Amino acid sequence: MRKDLCSLSLQNLTYLCSFVEILKGLEKLVSDVDIVKSFVWGKDTESEEMLRQGFTHAFLMTFSSKDDFNCFLRHPNHVEFSATFSAAIDKIVLLDFPAVLVKPA
Amino acid sequence: MRKDLCSLSLQNLTYLCSFVEILKGLEKLVSDVDIVKSFVWGKDTESEEMLRQGFTHAFLMTFSSKDDFNCFLRHPNHVEFSATFSAAIDKIVLLDFPAVLVKPA
Repeated sequence: MRKDLCSLSLQNLTYLCSFVEILKGLEKLVSDVDIVKSFVWGKDTESEEMLRQGFTHAFLMTFSSKDDFNCFLRHPNHVEFSATFSAAIDKIVLLDFPAVLVKPA
Repeated sequence: MRKDLCSLSLQNLTYLCSFVEILKGLEKLVSDVDIVKSFVWGKDTESEEMLRQGFTHAFLMTFSSKDDFNCFLRHPNHVEFSATFSAAIDKIVLLDFPAVLVKPA
């Protein structure tokens, strides 16, 4: 069985101007690139500051397979976006993992 | 419109014995507590070490509302599990955020 591949990043996006630009760019990216299966993001509002460790936002993209994920990495829109994105954030964690679905929505 | 509330944690679970116990506990927790809407986890396999920043696993629980999330926090099974969980991990980031669904699966 093929598993979905999730790409998860946490970021510190304290400055509103960067955030609006980055979100606009991400929304365009996932809408233009069909192989992105789903995209969800959020700004932390409920966690405790100590456990947040300076991160403010989480972004989760899902792909149907590792092949789609690899295509996405090489996609020109992603490559272009990453250049802008890397310059605008001051803290990031990125995990890319095959998703184990214990309890489906 | 009510948004789903996501609870996302990243952990460094280097020791296999801790990991097996924790995963077993989490699976039991989400299966016993109905208000957990969905649960997905994964071990990073594709990211670059530099971007991983020492984290090995991601766990994502989704709830239908902030009320359900708050009920879960106070649920005796969660309280009990958290005590075990906290002792077994050496690094954690936790973000709890209303989920903005840009591209549905």
